[in-house]
Amino acid sequence: MKDVLPVINTFEKYFQNENIFPENYLMNLYEPCSYFLSNSGKRIRPCLCLLAAEMLGEVDEEIYKLAIGIELFHNFTLLHDDIMDDAPLRRGKPTVHEKYSNSTAILSGDVLSIYAYKYITDVNSNKLPEILEVFNKTAIEVCEGQQLDMDYENEENVSLEEYLEMIRLKTSVLLGCSLKLAAISMDAKKEIKELLYDFGIFLGMAFQLKDDYLDTFGSKSEIGKLPGGDIRSNKKTALYIISKELSTKENVDWNKYWNIEDEELKVNEIINLWKKQNIDKILIDMIKEYSDKANDILNQLSDKDYNVAKLEQITNYLLHRKK
Amino acid sequence: MKDVLPVINTFEKYFQNENIFPENYLMNLYEPCSYFLSNSGKRIRPCLCLLAAEMLGEVDEEIYKLAIGIELFHNFTLLHDDIMDDAPLRRGKPTVHEKYSNSTAILSGDVLSIYAYKYITDVNSNKLPEILEVFNKTAIEVCEGQQLDMDYENEENVSLEEYLEMIRLKTSVLLGCSLKLAAISMDAKKEIKELLYDFGIFLGMAFQLKDDYLDTFGSKSEIGKLPGGDIRSNKKTALYIISKELSTKENVDWNKYWNIEDEELKVNEIINLWKKQNIDKILIDMIKEYSDKANDILNQLSDKDYNVAKLEQITNYLLHRKK
Repeated sequence: MKDVLPVINTFEKYFQNENIFPENYLMNLYEPCSYFLSNSGKRIRPCLCLLAAEMLGEVDEEIYKLAIGIELFHNFTLLHDDIMDDAPLRRGKPTVHEKYSNSTAILSGDVLSIYAYKYITDVNSNKLPEILEVFNKTAIEVCEGQQLDMDYENEENVSLEEYLEMIRLKTSVLLGCSLKLAAISMDAKKEIKELLYDFGIFLGMAFQLKDDYLDTFGSKSEIGKLPGGDIRSNKKTALYIISKELSTKENVDWNKYWNIEDEELKVNEIINLWKKQNIDKILIDMIKEYSDKANDILNQLSDKDYNVAKLEQITNYLLHRKK
Repeated sequence: MKDVLPVINTFEKYFQNENIFPENYLMNLYEPCSYFLSNSGKRIRPCLCLLAAEMLGEVDEEIYKLAIGIELFHNFTLLHDDIMDDAPLRRGKPTVHEKYSNSTAILSGDVLSIYAYKYITDVNSNKLPEILEVFNKTAIEVCEGQQLDMDYENEENVSLEEYLEMIRLKTSVLLGCSLKLAAISMDAKKEIKELLYDFGIFLGMAFQLKDDYLDTFGSKSEIGKLPGGDIRSNKKTALYIISKELSTKENVDWNKYWNIEDEELKVNEIINLWKKQNIDKILIDMIKEYSDKANDILNQLSDKDYNVAKLEQITNYLLHRKK
């Protein structure tokens, strides 16, 4: 990540120095927004936007506006997801609805989504229609992904295909969009726009599956929390779905595992079952399949004489991270 | 309203026939949106958009898209406001969070706001930057108005000036925006755009003050509910604020009235106090002041040979309505 970190740091500085919201005005609305934004995540989406632009030419102010808009939109979705999931913490800090109130979290999220549009549409007017077409479509898809995620909580038989479509919508399309918006802003050819978008989709799929993998098979010291969180909350991740399908074939008594009352015993027994069923290896293979596809696109871009070194670095970082 | 009703009906038909959401897909997300939209309000905002366009020339498809976008945005704000206000009913039917759930109401509202953008940005590309500038600004202001409304619930001393600014943001700016977007789409001169916007602001102020007036001084048979709803819920409307200021000057024991335990007695006593203080007449004067300003703009437009007959009709309807 040595060449990517300076890009993230530069964005972070720009982001901090940008006075996004009016100062000393309506603090009950804007302070929660600033609070949430300051609880910095990995800034992956704006970083992808900047890296795609760098690959295509000289990065200007417009790209930073797009990158900020994308980061605002991402945070808007997290802020509202936290209410829907009734999550007490986000990145170790109280969520907005916990720290303030549900109403505050709803309205601060709403205004955040409009600021996202404000930044994303702050581009050269000849690019606006295409920027909006891609962004509107993506924004709708992200909501649809969240709806599928909620629907699947109450559905017993979610197929792997359905699950993958859900994470494509909920996670991958915004990564693809981040890269594609940069390409539009940089006047890239249609082919390059599509390649970058697809790269983002594959990267997003691998990224989310890696998240699922780490939650169960990561080590406590590395992921900074007890493994098995998804098992504890009965979350139907890829691991759950694949294991359930296998268990039916193998005549494994699925309920026996999921009905264990002692929580830690349950987590241990299920992790043991999953290891026996090679779920860890199956996941690693799936992640590799998507990351191979992502890397294949980087190779195609490299063949066209684009310097993909930094996109390669962030891909490696995201897919080999241990937390 | 005889010439305006056909315009509203035509919009309603167009709106019903437009397949806004994907069919038979993600019903848990889109069905609540359709449910809420079908609970038709007065469609004032799209109507103003269409009337402004009619006044300026021949109405085309683009205006209908804008009108739909504005109506979607308005409904998005209502849907989320209902959660924040914990309102059980909207126009006599269960609100979305009551009928479905809070999460459904949040996410359906979110997706509705993006569809609003989708329709509003479906205009000729040379008008996009101006359309977006006006709409983004308005959308942010509407959120700010809702925040002020919530803030004032917990503030004892809200001035009339502050209250008027709150209703300007929460209600008026979207009316002004509806007219201005039409003017932009119709390539109107800057002066006309501003006149129409200001007309919407004055109309919105008069409209909201009329709402406050009717809630207390309307007759049960006409407003279709018991008068005094705002008194029962201790809402700080213009009437409350003006009466409170007067009571201080007149040494009226304000708390004596608001602490009456029997609810109906309290409503009656306060209405009697307000009549003694001429609050009804003060309100009527205020409404007249704003409607005079609105009509003054219509006269200016008429002097420029625009046919303002329908805008006059809707103004009269909104300000002389009894419910």
